[in-house]
Amino acid sequence: MSRPYTYLKEEVYEANMQLPKLGLVVYTFGNVSALDRKKGVVGIKPSGVPYEDLRPDDIVIIDLENNVVEGTMRPSSDTKTHLLLYQHFETIAGIAHTHSAHAVSWAQAKRAIPNYGTTHADHLVSEIPITEEMSPQMIEGDYEMETGHQILNLFKRLDYQEVEMVLVACHGPFTWGKTAAKAVYNSKVLEELAKMAWMTERINPNVRELSDALKKKHYERKHGKNAYYGQDATSKKNTTKH
Amino acid sequence: MSRPYTYLKEEVYEANMQLPKLGLVVYTFGNVSALDRKKGVVGIKPSGVPYEDLRPDDIVIIDLENNVVEGTMRPSSDTKTHLLLYQHFETIAGIAHTHSAHAVSWAQAKRAIPNYGTTHADHLVSEIPITEEMSPQMIEGDYEMETGHQILNLFKRLDYQEVEMVLVACHGPFTWGKTAAKAVYNSKVLEELAKMAWMTERINPNVRELSDALKKKHYERKHGKNAYYGQDATSKKNTTKH
Amino acid sequence: MSRPYTYLKEEVYEANMQLPKLGLVVYTFGNVSALDRKKGVVGIKPSGVPYEDLRPDDIVIIDLENNVVEGTMRPSSDTKTHLLLYQHFETIAGIAHTHSAHAVSWAQAKRAIPNYGTTHADHLVSEIPITEEMSPQMIEGDYEMETGHQILNLFKRLDYQEVEMVLVACHGPFTWGKTAAKAVYNSKVLEELAKMAWMTERINPNVRELSDALKKKHYERKHGKNAYYGQDATSKKNTTKH
Amino acid sequence: MSRPYTYLKEEVYEANMQLPKLGLVVYTFGNVSALDRKKGVVGIKPSGVPYEDLRPDDIVIIDLENNVVEGTMRPSSDTKTHLLLYQHFETIAGIAHTHSAHAVSWAQAKRAIPNYGTTHADHLVSEIPITEEMSPQMIEGDYEMETGHQILNLFKRLDYQEVEMVLVACHGPFTWGKTAAKAVYNSKVLEELAKMAWMTERINPNVRELSDALKKKHYERKHGKNAYYGQDATSKKNTTKH
Repeated sequence: MSRPYTYLKEEVYEANMQLPKLGLVVYTFGNVSALDRKKGVVGIKPSGVPYEDLRPDDIVIIDLENNVVEGTMRPSSDTKTHLLLYQHFETIAGIAHTHSAHAVSWAQAKRAIPNYGTTHADHLVSEIPITEEMSPQMIEGDYEMETGHQILNLFKRLDYQEVEMVLVACHGPFTWGKTAAKAVYNSKVLEELAKMAWMTERINPNVRELSDALKKKHYERKHGKNAYYGQDATSKKNTTKH
Repeated sequence: MSRPYTYLKEEVYEANMQLPKLGLVVYTFGNVSALDRKKGVVGIKPSGVPYEDLRPDDIVIIDLENNVVEGTMRPSSDTKTHLLLYQHFETIAGIAHTHSAHAVSWAQAKRAIPNYGTTHADHLVSEIPITEEMSPQMIEGDYEMETGHQILNLFKRLDYQEVEMVLVACHGPFTWGKTAAKAVYNSKVLEELAKMAWMTERINPNVRELSDALKKKHYERKHGKNAYYGQDATSKKNTTKH
Repeated sequence: MSRPYTYLKEEVYEANMQLPKLGLVVYTFGNVSALDRKKGVVGIKPSGVPYEDLRPDDIVIIDLENNVVEGTMRPSSDTKTHLLLYQHFETIAGIAHTHSAHAVSWAQAKRAIPNYGTTHADHLVSEIPITEEMSPQMIEGDYEMETGHQILNLFKRLDYQEVEMVLVACHGPFTWGKTAAKAVYNSKVLEELAKMAWMTERINPNVRELSDALKKKHYERKHGKNAYYGQDATSKKNTTKH
Repeated sequence: MSRPYTYLKEEVYEANMQLPKLGLVVYTFGNVSALDRKKGVVGIKPSGVPYEDLRPDDIVIIDLENNVVEGTMRPSSDTKTHLLLYQHFETIAGIAHTHSAHAVSWAQAKRAIPNYGTTHADHLVSEIPITEEMSPQMIEGDYEMETGHQILNLFKRLDYQEVEMVLVACHGPFTWGKTAAKAVYNSKVLEELAKMAWMTERINPNVRELSDALKKKHYERKHGKNAYYGQDATSKKNTTKH
């Protein structure tokens, strides 16, 4: 019997299991998915299953119209948000959603996270953006789809390839990348940036953002045309240079 | 020789041992009990025993009038509070009490924890309520019984099946559920909510609670009639949908 | 060859090794000692030895006049403070000193830790006291002896058997008890109380101390004549009731 | 075939691996180097390699003019900063750079860390200094070299042998010492001091620095001519006395 999606289930399982290991979730909170864009299928965590009980074969395989292709469980309740992002962010293949404490605190405070330092600028030039709050109509309508639309609205003026993370107001972070592992990496980085920013503002309530020159410098040395952070593609080691 | 309560001792032992593992207690702090409502007996942690020394056979079995049925040790000093809740909250079968740092800090600050985000609304619509402070007369009287009455007073206007957690002013959290394991789960969730709420208020001192629509949406998608979070009862996996 | 102090070295070694395990120190910070009052000898951590390199045989045995009785290493630089406390606090046999982050922060802030909750009152009725700052003359004189005198000055109005912990202003916590293990227990409890108190004041800047009735109730139920926390002395289990 | 730098690669590898173990970095953040001053070669972490993938043989060996002597990977992007410090701080042989959360928060807040307690004074008398912010010209020029120059500017008025740590404004900490292991030790100590100082100011917003007498006393008892902290050089145990 053919098991055509084993590779995808394994990838999604491994990425999901990083969330509790990295301290980003407890119990059943959060979820990670991965997209095989050629086959048009997504693997995603089943809804409400504790990480300690999760097995690779529990990963649900769906198509981009949210039809179950393989699997007996119900996919994550956030599935529609994932699918909308995959449809519009054309080069991504992984999405993570966590309830990590510092990132959620900024989301609950309804504030974007300012770019206060080079750790932030190593990953993105802009602040970490936050969506508008949803109207009652949106909440009572197709809620998870509307969550995705709120994210897409923000990215009319932002480049999803440069800003791979967002806070959904009152809710928490979504991150993405070219793989599920990169999406998880971005969730951990976001949590570190959120933690540093909250302490930075306490230590100096008048702190201002990084200068434009320094924002650009750190981003460019890692991600620009003349980037010199990390190893060349020909190196035998994988690095986090993207 | 029959050992009729072994199943209950095991359940209570396992639930108690989760408290230090989840970082909610140190040394002898806190306690968990479970009720076998059919037999009318409660298993509860013995008083003052460090978790690292605790063994399943140390769990004390008492009836609902606080008579020891089996066991040689003195039950938790908070036993009367547990028993009063079991008598009045008719569908619960587990209670947990911890001294987790963030929840205790709110209790000491004598403030209910506002509902600032969807992580909170996933578990309850209302704030996490806090009891009135006790009068000297109550403190000097039957203290642990009065602690229970302060909780019951709050739940004249709240549904204990929807709000499975409370802060006792100046003291700390009590949580409950249909099993001891669920009560412990609620203690961990409460600690996470308390941590996020304390940072949320620092990041934005003018923050307001979640909109009614969003509170309701998140609670209903997990607990309402048309809930779609988690797996159906026929699924092979246990989930946290209740 | 007789090794008369092996039992004392083992006790002091085990108590010291709890400090890094409990997250109260890093590297060489802190120290624990134990007194054998009958023999008039103290075992104490050698100065500046990292915990990961410490071995039971490194523990230095000294008499109460600070003469080395057994051991090739120099005892802790805080030894004179320990000895002065053993001379004046006649029922104690263990002392611990840590640099745990929350307790040190209160000591650096030069503030006693108010009694904000029952976790605190379970262990002591009063605030956790803090010494006066030392004059330059005292600092430049016999510094570690003066540190001890600053503590003794505080305890002219406090009972060292009821208050087993103190903050030395600008420095950090000292704790004691009837055994080295109890002194370490008190260091961990103090760190938890310090953590809760710092968050309590942020969550409610107008918070007041516990009522006298509640302070007394919690202390008495654990330590009073009619204490009912913990197990009787005849119980087979050791508990933290003292 | 001779492998002349194996000893250096091992030392640098071990020192780098301490960073994630001590909670000072995640993923690829940070780097440690060591200098063999006799041979004029430096071993340094390769750029962008995750710690969990790092192997001793990945350590890049360069000379003091930044020519690769041995190794196939690109050295850390911060290499020029390391080299400039080795050239000017003539007795050091190890440098560490981390992104630890509390130290980075002070760097982002653009504030030196005041000397609030004896834990700080045990390691240095002065505040932990912070560099000036760089001009856009410096940032767009030879950035990592300019980072080094900003540090050197500060040390025109400070002694690098007494102050073995610095915050680079908007960026994070650099620390050094006579070995790579000592540089890492200083990074961990700096993180602890940064954590305590941030809480100290919240607990008492009017807190002042330690008295000069106490600053000097603690530093001298560990590092002065008549130091009595730690063990003599003839002791069989290594201690942190330097």
